[in-house]
Amino acid sequence: MAESLSRADCVALDAADPLAPLREQFTLPEGVNYLDGNSLGVLPAATPARVAEVVQREWGEGLIRSWNTAGWITLSQRVGDKIARLVGAGGGELVAADSTSVNLFKALSAAIGIAKEDGAGRKLILSERSNFPTDLYIAQSLARQHGFELELVASDEIAARLDERVAVLMLTQVNYRTGAIHDMAALTAQAHRVGALALWDLCHSAGAIPVDLKGADADFAVGCGYKYLNGGPGSPAFVWAHPRHVDRFWQPLSGWMGHASPFTFDTAYRPAEGVSRYLCGTPPIIGLAALECGVDTLLAAEPLGGMAALRAKSVALSELFLAQVAARCDGLGLASVSPADPARRGSQVSLSSAQAPGYAAMQALIERSVIGDFRAGAHGEPDLLRFGFTPLYTRYVDVHDAATALAEILTTGQWREARFNQKAAVT
Amino acid sequence: MAESLSRADCVALDAADPLAPLREQFTLPEGVNYLDGNSLGVLPAATPARVAEVVQREWGEGLIRSWNTAGWITLSQRVGDKIARLVGAGGGELVAADSTSVNLFKALSAAIGIAKEDGAGRKLILSERSNFPTDLYIAQSLARQHGFELELVASDEIAARLDERVAVLMLTQVNYRTGAIHDMAALTAQAHRVGALALWDLCHSAGAIPVDLKGADADFAVGCGYKYLNGGPGSPAFVWAHPRHVDRFWQPLSGWMGHASPFTFDTAYRPAEGVSRYLCGTPPIIGLAALECGVDTLLAAEPLGGMAALRAKSVALSELFLAQVAARCDGLGLASVSPADPARRGSQVSLSSAQAPGYAAMQALIERSVIGDFRAGAHGEPDLLRFGFTPLYTRYVDVHDAATALAEILTTGQWREARFNQKAAVT
Repeated sequence: MAESLSRADCVALDAADPLAPLREQFTLPEGVNYLDGNSLGVLPAATPARVAEVVQREWGEGLIRSWNTAGWITLSQRVGDKIARLVGAGGGELVAADSTSVNLFKALSAAIGIAKEDGAGRKLILSERSNFPTDLYIAQSLARQHGFELELVASDEIAARLDERVAVLMLTQVNYRTGAIHDMAALTAQAHRVGALALWDLCHSAGAIPVDLKGADADFAVGCGYKYLNGGPGSPAFVWAHPRHVDRFWQPLSGWMGHASPFTFDTAYRPAEGVSRYLCGTPPIIGLAALECGVDTLLAAEPLGGMAALRAKSVALSELFLAQVAARCDGLGLASVSPADPARRGSQVSLSSAQAPGYAAMQALIERSVIGDFRAGAHGEPDLLRFGFTPLYTRYVDVHDAATALAEILTTGQWREARFNQKAAVT
Repeated sequence: MAESLSRADCVALDAADPLAPLREQFTLPEGVNYLDGNSLGVLPAATPARVAEVVQREWGEGLIRSWNTAGWITLSQRVGDKIARLVGAGGGELVAADSTSVNLFKALSAAIGIAKEDGAGRKLILSERSNFPTDLYIAQSLARQHGFELELVASDEIAARLDERVAVLMLTQVNYRTGAIHDMAALTAQAHRVGALALWDLCHSAGAIPVDLKGADADFAVGCGYKYLNGGPGSPAFVWAHPRHVDRFWQPLSGWMGHASPFTFDTAYRPAEGVSRYLCGTPPIIGLAALECGVDTLLAAEPLGGMAALRAKSVALSELFLAQVAARCDGLGLASVSPADPARRGSQVSLSSAQAPGYAAMQALIERSVIGDFRAGAHGEPDLLRFGFTPLYTRYVDVHDAATALAEILTTGQWREARFNQKAAVT
């Protein structure tokens, strides 16, 4: 049983782990037990040199010539093609650019536009109440603009509510609070059966769990680059449109990089063929180069079994954490709000804390260099301690030590002394 | 007379130039005569170390904690406050984020929203036919969405066309092709007299000429970070709203970073007070840090007279170039399409070429390491050779040498041999 595993047992698991060498791709600060890769992935060892090359050689020496000679002009597509391999999309179907919020605006605009043509007057966007707020804010904006309605329901009400009134089902595949995974294939199929489109936010799933956009027959997807893709703070995000939709709609952020021929400087917008029309302004080259390094750390797992192998380790890590917490924190007021079934749980575990306020408990852990994060409860849900498991670099022994630290700060009351010197960090 | 200046005269001008030490702030490749800072500014010497610090120390070691400890969470505002000093805006009025196109979408949406409330049914956006295309494409999109009309006129028709039917006057202050400067104060005043709003794109003016948004009583402004602000390829852009408008409108790219309280994770969007509501997604930290280094190279000119002193040198450089070209390229088919009056000309000179195709001529120059750029003619206008003068680092001798090289490639017919190995680069 996982709960009986000693630290030595966990060290042995790491020694026997065929994925363990992937950790060498990263620069992890000495002494830090980092369980927050679901919020900001760690620095790939290759990134500093690659960023320096872009800054010093490509920009500093190549200057304007590097748009062609260094391939900047197609970097959004090149990085997009690599991300596509992680999420079950085809080559040429996905681009990296802008932020998740901006990309969601593009994709949801397209979905609404298509629904207006095909949807027989439907004007409902259905989403989950505990979807990540930026998704809800963008949907709120577009609903207002188009005279649509945004309806938010609890996770377990989605299937029942998904009927012929719905134009677009907009969901984040893995919930940012609980880590609960929606069944993308089943919900997409149900959406299609009732004539709705399905748009998926992959922020907590790209690079975390196997995703099969084409297999699930999804319609649109977006996702971020700074979590499991290890692209760095504020990394460019990505957007995907199914090939059946991609050329149907003229997305409203019609910047010149999405034009069919940007350098003819036409006065009239003509969208590019394919997903390049989902580009807008000049792409952020330094950020894209850093993102490519991050994505490469995941592609490096392909010879070792790829996302399926990473997922198996992720499940083992989170099962170990839950077992260790159950064994060692019994009676300390912790409860998991993540699904108990690992098949329904993403690459994180979230705990509520009845004894110590979650914020103080997480501060105490961070002061011991065990870094997870805190999420304030919203709409009646509890405050949460989030622990992310990123099998590219999280070890079994890290999980063991985190559970040990958690038991100690609660048992000793050390959380009462935590300095309140940090605010909640960026999800 | 400037046309009679020898190379030695130009070397002497540089030696006597009180702004010459500002060039030491940059890393310029050996042997390159770079006259394309109006397209991509050169690399500040401070940028590589600052970017490395952000990547290795703030991200690599600080990890998620750096959102607070390294000030990432307010970096858009901090860099915005520095840019504000260059464009006549107040502190707290301007943010750096996203691309120019995305920011224009926000600002023009706001202007349209306000016009709908105040504008007594006006539905016309007036702009210039040779405005930079991405501005026209974004305006086209918003016009379509809001049932507005976008009317494009020639530069010299704007004043006559600006009447009570116009809701929003949207102009780029300095034309990307010709370098012609619009009189921001006069056109804004005229717009206000007829009840229209004035939105200014500062892509070719921020860091190039003195700009006084508040003095001109402008309504909205956007601009880019990678030209005269030296922020690097695809650098974040900026957006400004006059304080009288900033809290009136809920801009449609309502991402969580524009929320009044992002970390309470409300389901409903409530825009932040002030210009922070013009933020959308998670800000691009590495790009913002590089942009800050670039802006700092301009602020370093403040003790030497700031933008006014830089502008005086810019005028001297472009006057010298025109005089040298007139003296040495007589009969070679070149003609300036830039305003002859330096007060009406930005920090660039654009030439049409009757003898050699502009593309081939620029290629030949680039092969001689004189780097300007080429812009294909659109809507009946000629192809152009563009030469940007960036007084932070352009020397009088560089201008002399560029005119010499231009005369030589045309006189010798060397342009016929230019390798056609590069496409037009990003403006």
